Amino acid sequence: MRRGSDVFSTSRGTVSERGRNRSWLLSSIITFNVLILGIALVSGSVFNNVKINAINLQIFLIVLIILTTAWMLYYTIYTSREDHAVLYKDSHAGPVWLRGGLVLFGLCSLIMDVFKIANYVGYLHCDSAVKIAFPVVQAVFILVQTYFLWLHAKDCVQLQRNITRCGLMLTLSTNLMLWMAAVTEESIHQTVVPPEDDNSTHSYDIRAPGGSSSCNCSHSACAVLEKAYYYLYPFNIEYSLFASAMAYVMWKNVGRLVDEHNHHSLHFRLKDMLVGPAVGLVMLVAGLGTFVIYKVDVEKGDPGKRDTVLMIHYVMNTVAVTLMSVSTVAGCAIYRLDQRDHVSGKNPTRSLDVGLLIGASFGQFTICYFTIVAVVATGAEGHLNALNLAVSLLTVIQLCLQNIFIIEGLHREPFHEDMHQASVFTNPYVLQAQAHRDIHNLPGTFMETKTSPALTVHSMHVAPSAPSSSPLPQRHRLTWKRRALKEICAFLLLCNILLWIMPAFGARPQFDNPIGAEFYEFTMWAAVVNIGLPFGIFYRMHSVASLFEVFLTS
Amino acid sequence: MRRGSDVFSTSRGTVSERGRNRSWLLSSIITFNVLILGIALVSGSVFNNVKINAINLQIFLIVLIILTTAWMLYYTIYTSREDHAVLYKDSHAGPVWLRGGLVLFGLCSLIMDVFKIANYVGYLHCDSAVKIAFPVVQAVFILVQTYFLWLHAKDCVQLQRNITRCGLMLTLSTNLMLWMAAVTEESIHQTVVPPEDDNSTHSYDIRAPGGSSSCNCSHSACAVLEKAYYYLYPFNIEYSLFASAMAYVMWKNVGRLVDEHNHHSLHFRLKDMLVGPAVGLVMLVAGLGTFVIYKVDVEKGDPGKRDTVLMIHYVMNTVAVTLMSVSTVAGCAIYRLDQRDHVSGKNPTRSLDVGLLIGASFGQFTICYFTIVAVVATGAEGHLNALNLAVSLLTVIQLCLQNIFIIEGLHREPFHEDMHQASVFTNPYVLQAQAHRDIHNLPGTFMETKTSPALTVHSMHVAPSAPSSSPLPQRHRLTWKRRALKEICAFLLLCNILLWIMPAFGARPQFDNPIGAEFYEFTMWAAVVNIGLPFGIFYRMHSVASLFEVFLTS
Repeated sequence: MRRGSDVFSTSRGTVSERGRNRSWLLSSIITFNVLILGIALVSGSVFNNVKINAINLQIFLIVLIILTTAWMLYYTIYTSREDHAVLYKDSHAGPVWLRGGLVLFGLCSLIMDVFKIANYVGYLHCDSAVKIAFPVVQAVFILVQTYFLWLHAKDCVQLQRNITRCGLMLTLSTNLMLWMAAVTEESIHQTVVPPEDDNSTHSYDIRAPGGSSSCNCSHSACAVLEKAYYYLYPFNIEYSLFASAMAYVMWKNVGRLVDEHNHHSLHFRLKDMLVGPAVGLVMLVAGLGTFVIYKVDVEKGDPGKRDTVLMIHYVMNTVAVTLMSVSTVAGCAIYRLDQRDHVSGKNPTRSLDVGLLIGASFGQFTICYFTIVAVVATGAEGHLNALNLAVSLLTVIQLCLQNIFIIEGLHREPFHEDMHQASVFTNPYVLQAQAHRDIHNLPGTFMETKTSPALTVHSMHVAPSAPSSSPLPQRHRLTWKRRALKEICAFLLLCNILLWIMPAFGARPQFDNPIGAEFYEFTMWAAVVNIGLPFGIFYRMHSVASLFEVFLTS
Repeated sequence: MRRGSDVFSTSRGTVSERGRNRSWLLSSIITFNVLILGIALVSGSVFNNVKINAINLQIFLIVLIILTTAWMLYYTIYTSREDHAVLYKDSHAGPVWLRGGLVLFGLCSLIMDVFKIANYVGYLHCDSAVKIAFPVVQAVFILVQTYFLWLHAKDCVQLQRNITRCGLMLTLSTNLMLWMAAVTEESIHQTVVPPEDDNSTHSYDIRAPGGSSSCNCSHSACAVLEKAYYYLYPFNIEYSLFASAMAYVMWKNVGRLVDEHNHHSLHFRLKDMLVGPAVGLVMLVAGLGTFVIYKVDVEKGDPGKRDTVLMIHYVMNTVAVTLMSVSTVAGCAIYRLDQRDHVSGKNPTRSLDVGLLIGASFGQFTICYFTIVAVVATGAEGHLNALNLAVSLLTVIQLCLQNIFIIEGLHREPFHEDMHQASVFTNPYVLQAQAHRDIHNLPGTFMETKTSPALTVHSMHVAPSAPSSSPLPQRHRLTWKRRALKEICAFLLLCNILLWIMPAFGARPQFDNPIGAEFYEFTMWAAVVNIGLPFGIFYRMHSVASLFEVFLTS
């Protein structure tokens, strides 16, 4: 009898594992192909004379969007009818700030689409109708997708896994394609080819594809609308990235069996904190002030003023980045003193967070190193170049330190008021679980046991209610460390918001300072900045989210 | 007593885990920074007028090489003195074909360096001495590194983990930088800016950095030497990639505890096989024949002949890719019929293989999709464009199918003459292990046990010696499937060698056919091809290695 059920489970397990591998491969290959075809279309629509244009790309996007929307509706209806479609939920996936951000950015994207529709209505008499169809379809898509992700972000789907994997990968590809298209359009809009550069005679179509020069708007609001919707682009870009991240985590969770233990509720409190938020707010306000001055004076186009404003911008950045580095070093030092455990166990959300953080920092690193090479190779004469070099070097250091700080922070067990060193010794469950977990780290021991998630969870549930015999001084020391960590997180968070807002709303010192475009050719430099900067913006954005999580858990 | 040791192991385990995370992060950050600085230098040396040149890049590389060589010598001496430095070996890491390939490509690279030294001696009176120093240092590095990897590729280092991790990451960065520099130089050498293109007035320094125009060689062998060493570049490029892959696997294995069970010895036999190798050899010979005609006629530069030769090249590729797709479909069908188990358990070598396969196919995919977009958008008139489109479409399909086939093949348990379905039922160890393994796949079951590697290993050791009661027909059916799979692998392997040799030795239909450069701007198209093609070459190379492994295990 026992043997029979074993054989059954064996064959069943193998089949399901094989099926998993196949649908993983298939869905990955679909994404791969959609994305590369998309890259080719985007490149073709940018670096091309006449033959292909934004219309072809938009038709491709509309097809993708319709397919994805149809799948999402099918999934929603199917799971609402079937009782056992979703048995498990991943408590780490889709935290409330992520879903809240999704709704917020989704709203901004909807407004952008409305502005776009109103704008293109003015061009309807002489331009393609596809240009109106695209924002309409996109608006519907944003509504459906936000609803879908809000409801289903935590699902660990067990039924129809193959279809669900492919559908989620389609969602991911669609969002990444929308992101790519938006980033390209935004970059082209922000890149003004300098008139003194002799390469501006190129036939590249570096123009906003809003309206061709021969077609005039039929109503008066066009100029205002176009300006308005370009300010909303950064939100749309973030919306696509948020949705991509959530779709990816859902894809990783398909077929996963997790226990439904509840997340420890973490409260957001700013009480008892002063220095971090205060200094951070001062930096934010000062930074926004210099940013406004910068934008106003650069748009005037006076070369003498431009140097002064660039100087102010660089000084502001140097101060911010230096303070951030110093506080991050302090934070890392506190981690070293700290005795908290590392979180073990698989967690697709956290792995994705860390991967995105490191991957996105690539963009900013690239721009910094390119600037450093250019400035050093040309001799770095004058205050402006010296400041430019200093900012780039300090930013590299800051990025390294911040990555270390955030990754360390994300891998720590959350602090709990009642759970500290002393209670570990009085709680047999915790001891047992930890001994199980750590036996692997002893050299020469055969890995015969592995701690089960159930056991760990159990110990975590028991711990707070265990009789605690903690001496008060120790608790006080913990509180001191916690407070310092929270202050640092709050400060870093506000500074990252500043460094996010400046490039997102159009600060381009890389083009206003001519050294990069002179040293590398203009096209090369434009490519580096236009590919690197969106990642840099996303990095700051993502750091804010991660720092918020570190703030909550520490 | 027991409690005391538990506490000890707990604190010790936590410390080691924390240390692991730190040194992982630190070594990753070092690599990250070295690589991005390297990319900036490479880009600066290519897309630049005068200010920075190949010399600066070579000085950077020399510094990297000296640091890496010093660390490798230190490691070799340290481990030979210390008794317990390497307790465990990963039997999957550094298989003999990988190490053999390393030695072979290392030899070719050494010859290349000798040619380079002889060549630059002729320029010594008017050019920088760094140009000679670089190949000298590189030759020493190749000798030391080949010796180091031959001896230590399987090591799972337990002592001095932090230093070892950083050292291995330094080795990885150095090899990737050498790879990047070689690929760039090779691409610049292969890219001849078409004279009819109006963009050739650009000031990009797209010239082989061998000798500047004002400096003449003092001995007569220069022209021959330069031609000779450019033919050896592909081998040097592969050498760097092989070394990078081995360094990466060693880095993943630092601190890993594995059991020292021996690899099942797999024998390479071509007996009983006819169709696959025969058809493959015919394809290879025919392909090399057309390749020679192509190279000879394209170098003559006659536009009329160029079209004919391009046609022959495309037809040859279409036939090869179609046959490959058909046989891959047959192979996947056999896998579906096949009852072999999937390999479970962690294996960094296999994960790396799969990752590299998918990652490297990106290059070829990109070129294909860019070609498809260009041909479709321009209307695809004439035989040449139709063939170009057909080749691109078929290559996309072939890449998808081949990736699926290889990944499925790598995840199968090896076939063993004595170990088949029947013996599983008579062997209690296997049953137990499989039941343990598959209990996770039953929905609703709590994950309380996990199969231990020790148990699985045990069962695999026992299985061949268990009393076997297999009916002969079943064994015969298995043999039929095995033979078909081996035939398919041999055919695919030979075809991949063909598709590897053609671009590696300078076939550039992407530039000989003007459609890409006309549709996209020339610089854009050159960037796509010059970045995509080295990955494409590596993909074919890596497929050959992976197919050889699938051939052995099936």
